[in-house]
Amino acid sequence: MKTNPSRKTLVLNCGSSSVKYKVFEMPSERILAEGNLKRGAEQSFEDMLEEIFRIAGPDVDMTAHRVVHGADLFPASVLVTEEVMRRMESVSYLAPLHNPINLEGIRLAQRHYPSIPHAAVFDTSFHQTMPPTSYLYSIPYEYYERHKIRKYGFHGTSHRYVMGRASELMGMPADKLRLISCHIGNGVSVTAIRNGESYDTSMGLTPLAGVTMGTRSGNIDPAVIPYLERLEGIETDEVLRVLNHQSGLLGISGISNDIRDLLKIAKEGHERSQLALDLFVSKLHQYIGLYFARLNGADGIIFTAGVGENSPEIREKICQGLEFAGVYLDREANAAGSGERMISSAYSPCKVMVIPTNEEIVMARDAVELVENQPAWGTGRIAITV
Amino acid sequence: MKTNPSRKTLVLNCGSSSVKYKVFEMPSERILAEGNLKRGAEQSFEDMLEEIFRIAGPDVDMTAHRVVHGADLFPASVLVTEEVMRRMESVSYLAPLHNPINLEGIRLAQRHYPSIPHAAVFDTSFHQTMPPTSYLYSIPYEYYERHKIRKYGFHGTSHRYVMGRASELMGMPADKLRLISCHIGNGVSVTAIRNGESYDTSMGLTPLAGVTMGTRSGNIDPAVIPYLERLEGIETDEVLRVLNHQSGLLGISGISNDIRDLLKIAKEGHERSQLALDLFVSKLHQYIGLYFARLNGADGIIFTAGVGENSPEIREKICQGLEFAGVYLDREANAAGSGERMISSAYSPCKVMVIPTNEEIVMARDAVELVENQPAWGTGRIAITV
Repeated sequence: MKTNPSRKTLVLNCGSSSVKYKVFEMPSERILAEGNLKRGAEQSFEDMLEEIFRIAGPDVDMTAHRVVHGADLFPASVLVTEEVMRRMESVSYLAPLHNPINLEGIRLAQRHYPSIPHAAVFDTSFHQTMPPTSYLYSIPYEYYERHKIRKYGFHGTSHRYVMGRASELMGMPADKLRLISCHIGNGVSVTAIRNGESYDTSMGLTPLAGVTMGTRSGNIDPAVIPYLERLEGIETDEVLRVLNHQSGLLGISGISNDIRDLLKIAKEGHERSQLALDLFVSKLHQYIGLYFARLNGADGIIFTAGVGENSPEIREKICQGLEFAGVYLDREANAAGSGERMISSAYSPCKVMVIPTNEEIVMARDAVELVENQPAWGTGRIAITV
Repeated sequence: MKTNPSRKTLVLNCGSSSVKYKVFEMPSERILAEGNLKRGAEQSFEDMLEEIFRIAGPDVDMTAHRVVHGADLFPASVLVTEEVMRRMESVSYLAPLHNPINLEGIRLAQRHYPSIPHAAVFDTSFHQTMPPTSYLYSIPYEYYERHKIRKYGFHGTSHRYVMGRASELMGMPADKLRLISCHIGNGVSVTAIRNGESYDTSMGLTPLAGVTMGTRSGNIDPAVIPYLERLEGIETDEVLRVLNHQSGLLGISGISNDIRDLLKIAKEGHERSQLALDLFVSKLHQYIGLYFARLNGADGIIFTAGVGENSPEIREKICQGLEFAGVYLDREANAAGSGERMISSAYSPCKVMVIPTNEEIVMARDAVELVENQPAWGTGRIAITV
């Protein structure tokens, strides 16, 4: 067996106004540096990245970049080649606010570190295993063929990570489990997992669809859009801006998109904050039911991301009324403790788990694996890790 | 106990291109005449109605009219007064293709039969019992307050009728049952019923939302709309036309919105017809799961309307994989027989029923009840039957 050398891996999550980074020593997974850089008033995106490259140092062995939308072109992470760049650009129209800045991050890293491999890790890859009954919309089929209009799903790296941890925690191989993974942060998505693969997920063509989120509406009657255009005298793009940025918990409560704030204000008697929380919980509760049906029952439910990891109150309310499907929470285990743990009763047929997510470590591992299995990176071949 | 006199009741369902009518002798419920009149080339809507009034005869004692959208103003059927007409008009903007023609039908009936009572029966009334967690969209609350943008649900008269019959068939009072009612015609809606009331339903502000239908898309990522506008170079109204009239089974198969056609063609190897059927079944299957969660389990599932009553194949596929929730179909009972019947196994904890719907009889009964309980109809008071 060959011994793998220690490698310094820079993981980047590039947004237009902030960039998150982590520098790992791999394979030990020791964190050498990390941060979340917000763009200063006079700073360009390039300035932000230069600052991070300075922090990471000149001896970086590889980088890994989060790319939001891989459409149906990237069922797994890849090492970046010119062909890969060209393909990623060809689907940027599906995530016009995210993909271009992700790609710009890659280009800047390539320029700064011209002689090392760069990996792209997609939010959509994990969901590429969904069957057509999950990913097709019931709209004219030609829109799927011509424009790739279908459900893709997001948070794939997170759902993949917690699936692996749940398998460990339950002592069962992932391909023998039916799991429902709830990633509950400011963005929220629920994924049905079977055979170790994503089978269905709540987000859609974009991250707007599915359950109620911090500022996103989730599913609505599509006809609401023309009604709002007419009644408010606004254009489609403005309606979409409202649905993405002024809806969800914020839109209903009129106050905040932060669950902690809302729990506090609701207890003080603010009715619309309570209403916002009730809606939020209800939509998650019913999506779990939907995926119970999709999987004909589940062996485990996973809670992850900010709210999923840290709000026992929300977890408890979501699980209330799922007894019909064998879900029995251990209220004490749910309320106490922290970190990765089982929070269902010992006799609960369906296990409930809290699993802190770790997208960055998945990105670093993917990059290392790609580099080790593909020494000829950069020759134009696309390396795919399954 | 007073004896109620025999009353001739004309039931009307007015669309712009066709009008369905039934003339009942009440309370015997004997059908004296019925038909579905399509508008002739040279015929006005008024001509159509005059023809029906001629058929019904001059001795009609009352009429009952289907009104598609009652918004949140009509939790039950009402006798029409000027005030009722004014209120119905005030919410016509919520169903601009349906309500105006429904109201025009009422006006013509009032002119032709000026001295008898006329009742309005709303598709939305039954769903007025939904809680805010069911009817609110996670959009800015002011849109609900200012424009009444919320979920209303439709097919209410049908869901109400089959609920009553299911209660009879199960030998249990409706208010002790948790039921999931699947109205599967060219329009499709699923309703969760508890305490004898609608608790949640799949259609929304309009009949576009929910599951895959004959030509309607059901739920999609709302962001699909601006993508189609941009990629196809069309306006919102055109996208909505496509979502309402060229989507669903027709859009996926590219061939037909008729389940019978599709079952036949799919068996002959037409892949996209099979795909359309698979999607159709899958969305219904998962909505049942969603309502299982909403009700924490159900005592019965009801299939009604064209496809629900007549397609054992579709019913069987929808129920496959609901065993986790105690649903066991009796395949023979499902395939054989006709009319109202139980099609689950004797040991199935959740019963499954086929119940032919009968919206017209509900409309006639509502009209009679209103007239009997409200002899002072037409005095400006709104009569409400619960």
